Parts: sequence; structure tokens; C-alpha cells
Amino acid sequence: MKKVSSIKKIAINTGGGDAPGLNAVIKAVTISALNRGWEVVGIREGYNGLFLPEKFPDGGLINLTYETVKDITPLGGTILGTTNRGNPLRFPMKSANGTIVEVDRSDEIMAGFRRNKIDALIAIGGDGSLSMANVFQKKGLPVIGVPKTIDNDLEKTVMTFGFDTAVGFATESIDRLHSTAQSHSRIMVVEMMGRYAGWISLNSGISGSADVILIPEIPYDVNVVADFLNKKFEGGKNYAIVVVAEGAKSKEGSTSVIEKEAGKSERLGGAAEKFAKDLQPLVDKEIRSVILGHLLRGGSPTTFDRLVSLRFGAAAIRALEEGHSGIMVALNPPTVDYVPLDQVSNRMKFVPIDCDTMKTGRDLGICFGD
Amino acid sequence: MKKVSSIKKIAINTGGGDAPGLNAVIKAVTISALNRGWEVVGIREGYNGLFLPEKFPDGGLINLTYETVKDITPLGGTILGTTNRGNPLRFPMKSANGTIVEVDRSDEIMAGFRRNKIDALIAIGGDGSLSMANVFQKKGLPVIGVPKTIDNDLEKTVMTFGFDTAVGFATESIDRLHSTAQSHSRIMVVEMMGRYAGWISLNSGISGSADVILIPEIPYDVNVVADFLNKKFEGGKNYAIVVVAEGAKSKEGSTSVIEKEAGKSERLGGAAEKFAKDLQPLVDKEIRSVILGHLLRGGSPTTFDRLVSLRFGAAAIRALEEGHSGIMVALNPPTVDYVPLDQVSNRMKFVPIDCDTMKTGRDLGICFGD
Amino acid sequence: MKKVSSIKKIAINTGGGDAPGLNAVIKAVTISALNRGWEVVGIREGYNGLFLPEKFPDGGLINLTYETVKDITPLGGTILGTTNRGNPLRFPMKSANGTIVEVDRSDEIMAGFRRNKIDALIAIGGDGSLSMANVFQKKGLPVIGVPKTIDNDLEKTVMTFGFDTAVGFATESIDRLHSTAQSHSRIMVVEMMGRYAGWISLNSGISGSADVILIPEIPYDVNVVADFLNKKFEGGKNYAIVVVAEGAKSKEGSTSVIEKEAGKSERLGGAAEKFAKDLQPLVDKEIRSVILGHLLRGGSPTTFDRLVSLRFGAAAIRALEEGHSGIMVALNPPTVDYVPLDQVSNRMKFVPIDCDTMKTGRDLGICFGD
Amino acid sequence: MKKVSSIKKIAINTGGGDAPGLNAVIKAVTISALNRGWEVVGIREGYNGLFLPEKFPDGGLINLTYETVKDITPLGGTILGTTNRGNPLRFPMKSANGTIVEVDRSDEIMAGFRRNKIDALIAIGGDGSLSMANVFQKKGLPVIGVPKTIDNDLEKTVMTFGFDTAVGFATESIDRLHSTAQSHSRIMVVEMMGRYAGWISLNSGISGSADVILIPEIPYDVNVVADFLNKKFEGGKNYAIVVVAEGAKSKEGSTSVIEKEAGKSERLGGAAEKFAKDLQPLVDKEIRSVILGHLLRGGSPTTFDRLVSLRFGAAAIRALEEGHSGIMVALNPPTVDYVPLDQVSNRMKFVPIDCDTMKTGRDLGICFGD
Repeated sequence: MKKVSSIKKIAINTGGGDAPGLNAVIKAVTISALNRGWEVVGIREGYNGLFLPEKFPDGGLINLTYETVKDITPLGGTILGTTNRGNPLRFPMKSANGTIVEVDRSDEIMAGFRRNKIDALIAIGGDGSLSMANVFQKKGLPVIGVPKTIDNDLEKTVMTFGFDTAVGFATESIDRLHSTAQSHSRIMVVEMMGRYAGWISLNSGISGSADVILIPEIPYDVNVVADFLNKKFEGGKNYAIVVVAEGAKSKEGSTSVIEKEAGKSERLGGAAEKFAKDLQPLVDKEIRSVILGHLLRGGSPTTFDRLVSLRFGAAAIRALEEGHSGIMVALNPPTVDYVPLDQVSNRMKFVPIDCDTMKTGRDLGICFGD
Repeated sequence: MKKVSSIKKIAINTGGGDAPGLNAVIKAVTISALNRGWEVVGIREGYNGLFLPEKFPDGGLINLTYETVKDITPLGGTILGTTNRGNPLRFPMKSANGTIVEVDRSDEIMAGFRRNKIDALIAIGGDGSLSMANVFQKKGLPVIGVPKTIDNDLEKTVMTFGFDTAVGFATESIDRLHSTAQSHSRIMVVEMMGRYAGWISLNSGISGSADVILIPEIPYDVNVVADFLNKKFEGGKNYAIVVVAEGAKSKEGSTSVIEKEAGKSERLGGAAEKFAKDLQPLVDKEIRSVILGHLLRGGSPTTFDRLVSLRFGAAAIRALEEGHSGIMVALNPPTVDYVPLDQVSNRMKFVPIDCDTMKTGRDLGICFGD
Repeated sequence: MKKVSSIKKIAINTGGGDAPGLNAVIKAVTISALNRGWEVVGIREGYNGLFLPEKFPDGGLINLTYETVKDITPLGGTILGTTNRGNPLRFPMKSANGTIVEVDRSDEIMAGFRRNKIDALIAIGGDGSLSMANVFQKKGLPVIGVPKTIDNDLEKTVMTFGFDTAVGFATESIDRLHSTAQSHSRIMVVEMMGRYAGWISLNSGISGSADVILIPEIPYDVNVVADFLNKKFEGGKNYAIVVVAEGAKSKEGSTSVIEKEAGKSERLGGAAEKFAKDLQPLVDKEIRSVILGHLLRGGSPTTFDRLVSLRFGAAAIRALEEGHSGIMVALNPPTVDYVPLDQVSNRMKFVPIDCDTMKTGRDLGICFGD
Repeated sequence: MKKVSSIKKIAINTGGGDAPGLNAVIKAVTISALNRGWEVVGIREGYNGLFLPEKFPDGGLINLTYETVKDITPLGGTILGTTNRGNPLRFPMKSANGTIVEVDRSDEIMAGFRRNKIDALIAIGGDGSLSMANVFQKKGLPVIGVPKTIDNDLEKTVMTFGFDTAVGFATESIDRLHSTAQSHSRIMVVEMMGRYAGWISLNSGISGSADVILIPEIPYDVNVVADFLNKKFEGGKNYAIVVVAEGAKSKEGSTSVIEKEAGKSERLGGAAEKFAKDLQPLVDKEIRSVILGHLLRGGSPTTFDRLVSLRFGAAAIRALEEGHSGIMVALNPPTVDYVPLDQVSNRMKFVPIDCDTMKTGRDLGICFGD
């Protein structure tokens, strides 16, 4: 393992879906490193900049300077670009006989690191990206991971960046729908991102005063929801807001539109549609659906997300300076801890059905469809 | 026609789709009238409060006081409720032989006005609602109309409320999508409301730096758009934003998903989907779609919409006091004018293809698909 | 101590400065309690509703129902009202000889609780309010405290509500000032709330890319700041943003405008003015000041603040049901814990000068004036 | 006068205080001109870039390309910089005997235009900047003016950019203060920009449900305001919002803090302070003040401001191409007109005391202090 004393140049990688706060991490990493006399480069589009040179006539690495990063904290997305096509450990290529095979190209990437004299890598990403970064660590490159997820589904860190911005926009959207739903005496169904974990739906639904919240962790019975809503309508309320995670599924299970497509990486928007279709015969109100989709990823990061991102970025460089590697920085409020990359589990952080936030939802009389 | 001197009590009606600013009109009408010693009532859910008494056990009219309206300016929707099911001039009822027939129930509503001693009506609505109000004017009830449309498609008023809020949210949404589109090198297609007129798409698309804007007024050729985008990509831009009005249609015309359903009142979200499907084979980028839908109707009105609404409401009462009726208040900046309800045409205000805003779009190099 | 089994009616109190999220706590407490069959009342304006009956012709208690609280989550302020005039333990009254004396009126308040058959109190407030509530606990009324502070200066809870909203607005305001400062080549000094602790300034300053942050915990030397800025200007930057906590003080100390007034409860806005006056002779740029003041307290709570508030409110009722009292609910992410009110120290939570966030600020090259 | 056919290169100037939308004008001018095959340069800091070369080691002109302007629509400020120190027609310089004299340096600027082969100027500014631009027109350089003012005080254009953003932020700030004022039973006084014209105060005060609005056009009597407020408090309202333009003055006149300083160009923040001080003895509520100041200039332009800016920029180039010069583009909704620069009066557009918006304010029961 390289010693700190030998660090002269580091690389930053952003992988997977973009999340508000990525640029703030890049800024903090860059300035913290430059202030220590290190050079910093950003790898374009995941690791593509290192092993797919033909895509980048101007070079696959971006030299990061004070000037490059000084104004990027408030910007959504990542100035390095990202990709979710083509995991380099299982990269799809055409074989000799014309079929598509998956090829491990990590050695080419390692060669790229060596060729560019990169002494350490700051890898910013979700579960998958961090596992990939750990491969490079095992092959000899010091790596510090920075957790990223708008879905809040990463273990080993209490919170990370991207999620607060997404939940904020989700709540604001629910706020917008209340008055129009009430004016028209409608049921408004809002679909949120969250294929496996229901955090965005749960937090925004509670904060936005939803009547019903359906999350992947709790299979729902449409009849339970209909009974709940009809009782509300009898009690005088003339409208309802239903929040549905894209991965929510009914108890009978097999009918979920989402489930059939589990192999695909794209978000489908089918959960709201299916639920609305099943609910309509059971209630005497118009139902309308809204799918927030990609709007949840965009926008300027909230202050919370900016600050966590900047703290993570600065902590990553301090960790490296202190001689650490093979670790991920993690928020354990109010401090930032280090967690071995090996322990960054492949399991997701699902909503525990008896967690404090779930209890709050039940205390507030919100229906979870069970 | 009733004279001003005889006005003791007025009614307010809100009809059709809700729009941010409705409550501000209600507030200004109410306070202006109360300050003149008049009584004010609001009719619940369009005119339902007057002719469908069974729906309202507590009465179909809401007594409007200073207390009722003091804090409602910033609220979206309408505190009176609205409906777009059942035009009272063609109200669907079951006939003796079991078929559904359309019945004119305007005389029942007129009876309701008389029974409740209503001396004049402030009708807030779009083209259809104002035509309906004109029927009551013809039958002897003094009416002042207030124009409402989030689509900006009403003739005879340069602007009205609701539109600025909708365009503002649309632009903010486009802003959010730039960074995520750029990070992923994607084409992002955003569908806006606007079945017949493209104002929301045009104004938000230009303000939000869209590359392509497709509106109902200009049938598009997907090949023209593809050529335009591919040239951009060759020039180095790695992503694109395409704004599509829900009523946008391709030149070949007959394939539009929307068109087939023209009779239905519901918004379908098919325009973005169809366009994306047709475009995908012609470009080498991922395409993702977002449909803003009902989010465009909600939310707190912008300052512009609040002010126009309050000015309209106050002007309506001044008009009534001055002895006017059978007119609509209209914005002819910087003044508020009166326009005869008879002249409030049934034609929509489409985007003129040579208007200043269109010219601006072309000067900026935006593609309109033609 | 009263047993849970005997709880039939509880009271809610909001004391001290208002903070976004108070209404969400009130909502969660109310609904959680009503759902358990308990009655809920709110005390008007701190404890005034209980011992100053003459102020409230309609009664000093508000009966809280589902209807009262259903839409209040997004509202700033407190529907109960609050006061920061007149601590009931040291209430200023005119003595027989005409001088003003401080009188302990807690027994009158206890009598008020008994008279109104209040079985337990949910006290929402800062350090002072919670100490006061603890007095009632000692006198026999079961109390659950809920921590409130926009300044983030409460020990024993990692975070509480109000702060995220305040910091969010502060950051947004700094964002607004960058472009105007840059266009005019100016130094912009922004004063934030924070008389004793610099959390708002620190977090918003880092998130908003301030150049200099001055907080009460770190006395500053204006010459250090001037040297720092002049070096930046020589390096090519043409403007600067300086964030100043209202309690920031220069190293020479005695000259602080604020300090002289330490006994008064009012915020003075003198810190920015003093700093700007001292800095102006040392730099060759125009300086302009902005004081955020009361704007930081207002507005709809962020999602984070809404959720923490709702969780605290629901947890307070669960705690009571479980037989707890004399405790404060506290956020120890991701869980809500109980802390004895006796341990809720009278010490504030100052910014530790070596905390992770301070290190981040230094890593980013921000000047703290020391 | 130069003919269109001879235009090969144009310059853009931004002068005076910055306003949201300046960058959108720059973008539209630049792209519209580049698309016609013209070159475009921006003059740095007003006209400084042309006659104070020592300030700009890298040159006083910025070459504007597609790349420079593509992402600037949402940015506040001006990428060219601006200045309000030193009108070049009366530029302060040290005379031979050591006194400061005002020197006309317009010929040096004209020489700069010639030296850089500038064929026409797009001058974006307020009344003063446009008068200055007209001097260059008279001296032979074709000029198109674009009106800019956040104060809405320009004659000859119904609206221009910057104002909608400023009023929007002002209204949002008033919104924030309602809940905190109500919670504490306070009078909150908010001071807005507007030294001579009260548009920002009037429009935001009405939209934000202020109780009292004090503008320069209507001298106020503090006793009238006190009587008005005390009547409100007797009627049950427990708080009030007072909006004060910085140029508001009391009827006795001579006591206004602002008035004494009329010669200075800086904003003073004295109007709210003076009013609060005079009001306090007359009411039995705490009064708190907030000064919005420079926050009103900052931030991303609203959609309205973006669109007007883009339309103005594109129209300016079309005007030039059509052979016009010596004119200002002006908004006469829904069209953009041309107005001779000679007619752009030196008089300001004050609030007419009987305009529709004032009538609305009076109809709503708002007190104007008269």
C-alpha cells in the first residue's frame, strides 16, 4: 500500500445516477488536496475516461483547479459526467462469434491509473460503485469512498447527500397537489423514486401530510386503502393524497408491473398507474396521477446536502493524509467516521417497519396499506 | 337589468380547472364588497351549490367574511371548490328509457340566485365558464366575469392569472433537468400542459434554455428534430432538453396519441411518449421523459398572479358599483379594462407563429420541429 | 407522579422565540393524543393563557381538534402564540412602593393546570423554557419537553427543528449576494442570528461559499481578515462574501457594540456594522451590509424540520403513554431518545473549534479571522 | 449613421446597479448577433473597459461566444461587471491645483469604439445609462438601448426586467414575516428599495397582505397609521405588517433621515428606523424592523424577467438589422416596440396615486398613511 508521503496526485470518480451534492464533494476534495500541494484530476463519465479513450478526443481526465471548482457547490449533477451504462467489471462486448459477453476491464483501468501516475482514488458513488472501487483498492490503489444515494438506502452511514434535496422536492410537490386535489375533490396519486427502499416516499409523505403511503417494504392491499379512504370521505374530507414508491407492490404480488421488469435498470412509473387502476372501482372520486421521476434528481442541493458533501470531501482528503485507505467516510452525526469498504454491505438499508419514523406515521393516522 | 343602487348581496363562482390566484380574486371581491356594505356568498363547486342541494348537507353557499378570506391570497386552488364534471347547460341525466341525456339546468340555478336574493354574480373562469355566466346575464342577473386560465389561451386580455405560476414552475423544472441530463449525456423530454395552445411550453422552453420546443400550433417533423440534435451533438454538446406541449403533433398528424382522444377531457401524457419513441431510433443518446401534469396547476401564486388576481377582484366590484354588467375585466397593461362578455370569443388565443416571442426563440437558435 | 392510566387531558405550551416546525410538533402531539382518546388543549402565548386571564376574553386555552391541526404542518410560527416578555418565574410587577419587582407566579400556573384538569404538559421550547417546565415537573405535573432552537445551541440533542430552515434561508441569501457582489466588485457583509453560538453562520457560510466567517466562538482580528481578503483580490478575485454572526467580536473585545448590551434580550444588528466600519480603511473595495434578522425565523419549515418536529411530537405522546415524564425527547440519529430534563444543561452547545465542520471550513480555505 | 450592411462587430455595455435578467439580455444579444455572422464583445464594468485600460491587464473587452453565454440565463448579476462609481461624462479627476474636478471622457470612449472597430452598441441600463448611450449615438455610433430597472421607474416601457424578481423576493419575505409577527403579537416593519418611486413596496405590500404601505409618492402621517393600527388591534388582529419604501417620508417632511442625504448615491436604511421610532410611542405592541436592501437585487431571474430580457436582447439585434438606431426597445404587451432614445425622458415613472393598483390597495383596506 502506498504511503501518504508518496501522494502527489489523486483522481476523483463519480459513478451511477447523479445526485445533488456531487459537485460539492468534488469541490471540497479538490481544494483540500490542492491546499496540500497535491494534483487533482477528475475521471470523465465514471471510469470511461480511463479505458474508453476513443470517447474523449480531449482526454478522459479533467485537470481540477481552484478555478474549475470555485462556483460549483450549488450546481446539480456532476461536472465529471457519469454513466449507468456498462459496469467495467462486467462490460458488455461483442465476442468473436458475435454474441455479447461481459468482460472484466478493471486491469485496463488500473493501467490507466498507473499511466497517469494517480496515487489514490476518491470514489463517489452508491453501493455498486463503492464495491467496484474496492476492487481497485485490492489491486493496490489506495481508495477512499464517499457514499452517494438519493434513495437513502446505504448501510453504514446514517445519512448521505442527495436524499435531503430529493425529499425536499418531493414534499414541495405534495404541497402543490393539496390545493388542486381539494378544489376538485380528487384523489391524487404521486409516484416517487424508490425501487427497493421507501425512504423518499415515507419522509415526504409524512412531511407533506399524505393520507396514504405505499412503500416496497410493506406490500399493500388495495381494499384496505379503499376502506381507509372511504371512511375519510364519509368523515367529511373531500380529497386525498396517496404517495406511492415506484417499487411498491400489492400483497397478491405477482401482478406488479415493476416486478416483471426487475432486471432492467430503468424506472418505469408503473406503480402509480397500477394502483390507481385497482383503486378506481372501489372509490367514488376521480383519481389523477403524477410521476416525479427525474425531477427528484435535479436541482441545486439543499444546505444540508451541500454541507454533508463538503464535509465528506474534506474528510476524504484528511483520511488519505492520515494514511487511511480502503475506507468510506460516513456520517454518524455530529461526526464523520471511517468505515472499512469491506464492511460496506451489499444489503440495502430498507425502512425498518418499527422505526421511529414509521411509528410517527402510524401515530398520525397515515395508512400504509397493510 | 338591476341597478347598482339595489345591490345588497353578491355571489362568487369558480369554475373549471383550478388556477393559482383564484383565492386572491375571491379575497379582493369579498373585501371590496364588504367595505361597500354588501353581503358576499361563495357558491360551492362551480354552480353545484345552487342546483345539487343533496351534495351539501351544510348548504351549497359559503358566507364570505373578512375572517374567511384574510389569509387566502397565498393559497393555491379555490376555497369554494370547483368541478369539471357536468356543465349545467348540458347536464348528463338518466332519461326515462335509461339512456343518458343532456339537460339544461340553468333555470334551476337562476331560481337558486333568486331564492338566495343574489343581486349580482362574479364569475371567475375560462372561456366555457364565462359563456355560461353570460347565459345568466341574458336571463337577467348582472354578471361580471373574471378571466382565468393557466394556459394563457384567452382572447381579449393580454394576460391573466395562473399562467405566470405555471410557467414559473415549468421553467424551474427545466432548470432541474439540465444538470442531470448533462451528467448522463441524455435527451430529456418534458411534457407540459397545453392541449391546443403552446404558451406554457414556449415561454418556459425559452426561459429554461430548451434546445427544442414542440407546440400544437407548429406540427413537427421528427426527422427535422433529429437532424438538429445530431448536429448539436457533433458540435460538442452532450445532452439536450426537449419541451413538448401535450397537444403537440407530428406533421403526418394521424398518429398522434392525443388526437385520437380529443373528445375526452383528460390529459393523457402521450405527446412526450410518442415523440420519444419516434426520436429514439434516430439518435445515439438515451432519452428520458418527464410529465409535469398536475404539478403545473398547484402551488402558491407568484407575485404577478397574486397582484393581477387582486386587481381583477377589486375592479370587478368597482365595475358593478359603477353600474356595469355583462362585462369581463381584462388586463391591458398597465390598466384594467372592461370587455363585453358577448365579445369574449369562443376562439382561443393561439401562439401566432410570427409573434415576438417566437422570433426570439428562432433568434436564439431553438428548433420548433418545422 | 401521575400514572399513564390516569391521563385524560394534556396541555401544550410553546415558549420563547418562534421557530419553523412548532406547528408540526403541535399537530403530531394533538393527533397522537386524540387517537389515544385523550383531550388536548393549547396554552396561549407561553403560559400567559393560564395566569393572565384578563388578556384572553375568549379564554386562555385553545381546544385542539383534528380540524384545528390538520393543515398546520407547513405553517411557520405557532398557532398558540408565544411571548418573550415576562418569565413567569421572575415576572415583573409593580411593588407597593412603586418599584418593579420580580415575582414567582409558578403556583398560579400550577393552579391553572389543576383547575383545567390538565394531567400532563408537553413543553416545546429552548433551554429557558425547558428549565421552567422542569419546575412544574418538580411540583407534580408530568412534563415531556421538546427541544426548540433555530440557533442549534441546545446540548443533549444532535439536532432539533427550526435550525435547518434558518440555515437554508441564510444560504439562499448568500447565494443571492454572490452575483451582485461580483458585478459590483464589492465586499458584502451578511449578518446572521447567533448571539452566543455561530452555528447558523458557520453552516450557511460554508454551504454558501463565503470567503470569511466570523463567529462568537472565535474572536477575530480585522487585520487578519483584511490581509486575507487583499491577498484574494491580488490573486484575481474581485469580490468577497463575509458572514458575521451577530455575536461575533473582535479580539480587542471591549469595543464590541453587542457586548455592551449583553443584558438586553433584543438583537442589535451591530456586528456587521462594526466590522464593516473597521474593515473599510484596510481594503480598496466598497463594502455593503445586509442583516437577515427576523427573516431567519419565518417561512415554511423545510422537510427536515417538519419531519423532526412530527417525530418529536409523536414520540412525546408515546413517552407519556409508556409512563415517562420529566424527560426531553432528543434526536440521536436515526433514533429519538429520552433525556432527563435535569440533565438538559444550562450550558449552550457552542461550535467546538476543532469539530469536523470547522475543519472542513479550514480545509476549504475559509478565513475565521483568527 | 452607419448602415446595417456595414455591421460586422457590436459591443454590449451594462451600467448602473445590477438587475436579474442582465445576463439573459447579454445571451440573446450575443446569440442573435453571432447567428447573423457578427462579432460580439462585452465592455467590462460599464465603460471602464474602454477608457480605464490600467484596470484590466487582460483587456477591457470580453469576446462573447456561444460557449460564453450558453448557460447564463439563470444567473443574477452581469458577467461583464458594472459600476456605479464614476459617470464618464462627469468623471472625477484630480485637477492641477489638487481639487477634484469632473471631466467628460466620452471622446476617449468613442475613440475606444473606433479603435476596436465597434460598429454599434447595445446599451443596457436605466435612465442615466441610456442618456449616456444617447451621447454616443449623437457622436455617430449606432446605439440600441435596453431598459433596465429593478425599481420599475422607467417611463416609455410598461415593464422591464429585474422588477418582477425583486418584487417576488419582497413578497416572499413578507410572507415569511407574517407567522413570526403573529406568534409574537408584533408590528413588523419591512423596508424595501425605492428611493423615489414606491413600486416594489406597493406591489409586494398588496401581494403580501401588508396592513400599511408607505411610499415616497404619498407623504405619511404617523398618527394616521397609529390610529389605523390601533383600530385593527381593537378589532382583534394581534399583529401588523408595515411595508416602507426607503424613500418614504412623513408629512412634516424635514425630519426624514433619507431626505437629508439625497445627494448621496447609497441606500441608507433609515426610513424603517425613523418610522418605527416615531410609531413606537403610539402603539402598545413591540415593533421590529427588517431591511431587505441588497437581497432584492440578487438571485436568479424569474421566468417573466428571463423572457422579457431574452425578448429585448433579440429585438435589439433585429432592430439593428432593420437599420434602426438611436432607439430603446420597450415592452408594450404583448409586443416589443421601439422608442426614440431622445424621448426616454429624464422623469421617473412614479406611482400615480389614482392608478388601478392603488385603487386595489384602497379597496382592500390597506392604509397608505394619508
